[in-house]
Amino acid sequence: MIVIMRMGASAEEIQSVVDRISGLGFRTHMSQGEERTIIGVIGDERPVNKDSLARMQGVERIVPILRPYKLASRDFQPHDTLIEINPLAKTGDYRGCTVGGKRLTIIAGPCAVESREQILETAQIVKEAGAHMLRGGAYKPRTSPYSFQGLGEDALVYLAEARQATGLPIVTEIMAPEQIPLLTKYADVLQIGTRNMQNYALLHAVGEAGFPVLLKRGMMCTIEELLMSAEYILSHGNRKVMLCERGIRTFETYTRNTLDINAVPVLKELTHLPVIVDPSHATGKWNLVSAVSRASVAAGADGLIVEVHPHPEKALSDGGQSLRSARFAEMMTQLRRVADAVGRTL
Amino acid sequence: MIVIMRMGASAEEIQSVVDRISGLGFRTHMSQGEERTIIGVIGDERPVNKDSLARMQGVERIVPILRPYKLASRDFQPHDTLIEINPLAKTGDYRGCTVGGKRLTIIAGPCAVESREQILETAQIVKEAGAHMLRGGAYKPRTSPYSFQGLGEDALVYLAEARQATGLPIVTEIMAPEQIPLLTKYADVLQIGTRNMQNYALLHAVGEAGFPVLLKRGMMCTIEELLMSAEYILSHGNRKVMLCERGIRTFETYTRNTLDINAVPVLKELTHLPVIVDPSHATGKWNLVSAVSRASVAAGADGLIVEVHPHPEKALSDGGQSLRSARFAEMMTQLRRVADAVGRTL
Amino acid sequence: MIVIMRMGASAEEIQSVVDRISGLGFRTHMSQGEERTIIGVIGDERPVNKDSLARMQGVERIVPILRPYKLASRDFQPHDTLIEINPLAKTGDYRGCTVGGKRLTIIAGPCAVESREQILETAQIVKEAGAHMLRGGAYKPRTSPYSFQGLGEDALVYLAEARQATGLPIVTEIMAPEQIPLLTKYADVLQIGTRNMQNYALLHAVGEAGFPVLLKRGMMCTIEELLMSAEYILSHGNRKVMLCERGIRTFETYTRNTLDINAVPVLKELTHLPVIVDPSHATGKWNLVSAVSRASVAAGADGLIVEVHPHPEKALSDGGQSLRSARFAEMMTQLRRVADAVGRTL
Amino acid sequence: MIVIMRMGASAEEIQSVVDRISGLGFRTHMSQGEERTIIGVIGDERPVNKDSLARMQGVERIVPILRPYKLASRDFQPHDTLIEINPLAKTGDYRGCTVGGKRLTIIAGPCAVESREQILETAQIVKEAGAHMLRGGAYKPRTSPYSFQGLGEDALVYLAEARQATGLPIVTEIMAPEQIPLLTKYADVLQIGTRNMQNYALLHAVGEAGFPVLLKRGMMCTIEELLMSAEYILSHGNRKVMLCERGIRTFETYTRNTLDINAVPVLKELTHLPVIVDPSHATGKWNLVSAVSRASVAAGADGLIVEVHPHPEKALSDGGQSLRSARFAEMMTQLRRVADAVGRTL
Repeated sequence: MIVIMRMGASAEEIQSVVDRISGLGFRTHMSQGEERTIIGVIGDERPVNKDSLARMQGVERIVPILRPYKLASRDFQPHDTLIEINPLAKTGDYRGCTVGGKRLTIIAGPCAVESREQILETAQIVKEAGAHMLRGGAYKPRTSPYSFQGLGEDALVYLAEARQATGLPIVTEIMAPEQIPLLTKYADVLQIGTRNMQNYALLHAVGEAGFPVLLKRGMMCTIEELLMSAEYILSHGNRKVMLCERGIRTFETYTRNTLDINAVPVLKELTHLPVIVDPSHATGKWNLVSAVSRASVAAGADGLIVEVHPHPEKALSDGGQSLRSARFAEMMTQLRRVADAVGRTL
Repeated sequence: MIVIMRMGASAEEIQSVVDRISGLGFRTHMSQGEERTIIGVIGDERPVNKDSLARMQGVERIVPILRPYKLASRDFQPHDTLIEINPLAKTGDYRGCTVGGKRLTIIAGPCAVESREQILETAQIVKEAGAHMLRGGAYKPRTSPYSFQGLGEDALVYLAEARQATGLPIVTEIMAPEQIPLLTKYADVLQIGTRNMQNYALLHAVGEAGFPVLLKRGMMCTIEELLMSAEYILSHGNRKVMLCERGIRTFETYTRNTLDINAVPVLKELTHLPVIVDPSHATGKWNLVSAVSRASVAAGADGLIVEVHPHPEKALSDGGQSLRSARFAEMMTQLRRVADAVGRTL
Repeated sequence: MIVIMRMGASAEEIQSVVDRISGLGFRTHMSQGEERTIIGVIGDERPVNKDSLARMQGVERIVPILRPYKLASRDFQPHDTLIEINPLAKTGDYRGCTVGGKRLTIIAGPCAVESREQILETAQIVKEAGAHMLRGGAYKPRTSPYSFQGLGEDALVYLAEARQATGLPIVTEIMAPEQIPLLTKYADVLQIGTRNMQNYALLHAVGEAGFPVLLKRGMMCTIEELLMSAEYILSHGNRKVMLCERGIRTFETYTRNTLDINAVPVLKELTHLPVIVDPSHATGKWNLVSAVSRASVAAGADGLIVEVHPHPEKALSDGGQSLRSARFAEMMTQLRRVADAVGRTL
Repeated sequence: MIVIMRMGASAEEIQSVVDRISGLGFRTHMSQGEERTIIGVIGDERPVNKDSLARMQGVERIVPILRPYKLASRDFQPHDTLIEINPLAKTGDYRGCTVGGKRLTIIAGPCAVESREQILETAQIVKEAGAHMLRGGAYKPRTSPYSFQGLGEDALVYLAEARQATGLPIVTEIMAPEQIPLLTKYADVLQIGTRNMQNYALLHAVGEAGFPVLLKRGMMCTIEELLMSAEYILSHGNRKVMLCERGIRTFETYTRNTLDINAVPVLKELTHLPVIVDPSHATGKWNLVSAVSRASVAAGADGLIVEVHPHPEKALSDGGQSLRSARFAEMMTQLRRVADAVGRTL
């Protein structure tokens, strides 16, 4: 951490800052420039409240040197985290998958579970096309209180049945800490949605649950904030965290969100956690999904989470961004070629 | 709602859309342009899933005509909502205040309750300067798991003591549904923070609690989304909702957020709910707080929520944006003049 | 400037950076932290190419200490710049005005000059309501090549006639360096539009012209970039620069732009140049203009530039954000009260 | 175009709008909803000033139906535009290239021409690695007036020499209309930079010049605005327009800009013009360039424009985002595989 003093800061002001820093247990290092004095702070600055320090008389600003996250960083763990999704342990009759390795992980399924038939049919479709996990919402966070809010536990029962039929592990969204017992009973991965990325009560709870988590980036959150939210989960003891880039909000309105493709190589550099891309929410338009899925794999993503619906024009939510069966199968074929071009497998 | 068909949509495609709409119980009205056919949908379109309709063959896009919220709108209730904050009902020994009338409501206090002394001292300061409510966090949503997370129930006890001493009602933040019993025991207004504006489980719960709520705008949420979140609370039976503009996230980094001053007159036009501005988070810098507070009052805000700390340079959070006692008192004097200039009182 | 070396940078890498800095004529100051080495650079860093330095082996990042602008800063000139707009020097028969003093400067008029009658009528209206300058476009930067592009020199002739009739100095937009001789012949202030804020050829040219300039902030430019563009004009010899906050582009779509009200006190702190606000473009809606105009004055703006049209429903451009005559007069009355409340006059 | 009337608009107001529309030469089509009246306007709405219409009494808002651009659209020209860059016509001794076909176009070179040696060396490097055109700035738009502004005509002479030596056509930036004679004498493609995308005087001038143009998307501009700027050039007679996605400005600060990868398939759908991606400015970091270049090709881009510098740590500008020789060659190898996977060649 570096403290930059204002031009003309007095000797008393400088001394006062040095004393405060020393009082916090750090050594300081002074540097006298032509216009300003700079005070270097030596030690692990992470727990220091930089904001109040910045408020001291004569201080212009504080420049942090260290990244604010630790467990999530490559410095802490240089090798990639591999996450075993192993429903086998529960029911004994189907295969799991590993997220974060050479093989890409494709998660596919409808936005929401709408009926037993719908989810069973979709599970079969995505399984045949080569997907590795099945997604489907039981509890849906909807902008409007008047929109379809999900089938609740019924949906979970259907999802479990779909897993039984296809062997695909289940990814479903969690909206509140009290849902943990119910959801972990049926599902294999808990998804934290974009609007809950900074719901700290929820992060804390899934951190303690120790269950695999797919953490979606807040549409309004920086890459660093995503890693800080992951840090919450990691620091409460759960190392099974997958990150998901799902598009950010920008001034561009032609697409629902703007896929931050830069975030893929940035995250692969900064963290050891697997990086999944959601091309459906990142575009909001089914006809863009294949192109940005190929791009995501080419950029180094470890997997995709894609909305697939057998009849998008009848979907109760997100019909506009869901792929039909044939289109999804075609995309999987394209992805195999791109994966191969960048040294991955599908 | 209007359905715009693609150029060259076939008669079958058009008929299919008309049939779907009729099947939903709406009448349609066709308009044949030179390049495109337009289908008007007559009736209350709010519950219709526009997204799946948009996915039908031959459809280019859907244009909603009605606003998606109802209870929050001026169409539904033309007169301003007045919210009585009346702790008297509980303890019998202090005055309350009314939010939304001619008199502005000034809520002031520290970001977090840090000690009994700190909150009692601050309560006295803001009371003397003319504030109407006391703010102070007991549970703090912090970006970092390593930062100060609040004193919890101890803080609530101190806040209640400060209310006892000054007569100021208490505003404090709620982070999860399960905190409702505890927080409503001590506080007078539940604040929903910017990161929880779309935490629907929480909105649902405070909606059912029927307790006054200060709903902060998400830093990356539109005005319409803010009103939709208010609609969640209203539609679950709670009409005591205050909206809070607290700055949005933009590309400008000199300030912590960008105060969307436009939102003040926009909200006063669209909704009957009171509009409070938070100049502290909207700027992130104490030296900008007075100027934007004056601006907010001049633009028509019904009140302010301001961070005040007796010793900002020692604050455990948000020191950089907190006003000292003297500065807050000076600001209150300025605000009285501006309020008077726009026909309000303080 | 501070150079932060990567964790584990070698002694050779550090020495190589030190040598490069010394070679540029600066002294260095080393600070050895627990995880990283920091190199302080002593001297005026502004001309240094930080980007290539950042590319040297072992460098993590560069932290600039000094602001990149100089002539525009309060450090360089602590007192406010006053700009005399004095058309008297040309024609001898009307008063000028001073921008940047205690008296606010209100610039009003139509988006574009549409006819002789329209501009003469508008000039009379805004003069009677108390405006100090007349705005009107002769050459219009329009998003579409198919939209009205302005009347060109005819408009300038009409504007000069309006000045003759009312005594109001003229503000009009410049789009290219070659327009300088023509525009300075008729107008009193050259406006640089939001899309040209970083048109450096134009900044250079008006810098050399030495004529008063109203520089609008780019809709996606930071406050610092606005000051850097002002620095271009100042550094080419022209000190008569007024800055204009006119709203920035954000994710909010209800309004045309988001007025960055924070920028008003920020600019008043960072620079000595006058700060004008454009409430018309900042909102895009006439019914919001009065509220945000009051807010701008309350926040400390030195003036406003407002679109006024006698018949907005017939305007060839920007009708939606233009005030009618009566509404403008009413707003001026309100502004007088707010100006008085903050120690300014109208 | 559809006119949505306010709830409760009077018969006179509705008639008045109908009369105005009829007066403009359009037919109307009325639709009476439960809450609002809708007026459809039949005909080519593009030249209509929607803004003033929206200002008429009783009007709530206007919904455009047609896209505002025409010549740039796939509706106007369904097949891809191919642009021949053919310096042969001038000097007779080197090959050209075609932009927009199956073969990708790779444009590479330094941000700025810094010396004869530098550009000749770089030209050789990028030629050997397989690039098809050479980029290099002679006139540089720099945020600071104190930064390196380019070598001017000397740079152009060196660029022409590099073309002579390698056969690579030259891309260089134009900053003002008056540079056209000089630049077209030396260069093969005129680049319009991100800050000039809406410099309409410049668009007009290059439109009339009829010379190949690489039009960069404004960092603050929507996809539609990019197409409107292309429309300016096309409508002035120049069909040789390449579009360039180079990253947009968002709240994310870890990277210099956010590459809008969605824009690639969106543009390929909306327009017939070739789409080039600039991974260097879109990331601002050399170590991200390869990943997002692969992503761009996988998403369907027709080419790339990449900053390459033999000694980035000594570059006078953009050193941080420039690739060294070996890294560029390695990237070209990767790109060949990805191009092949998506049915393109390099």
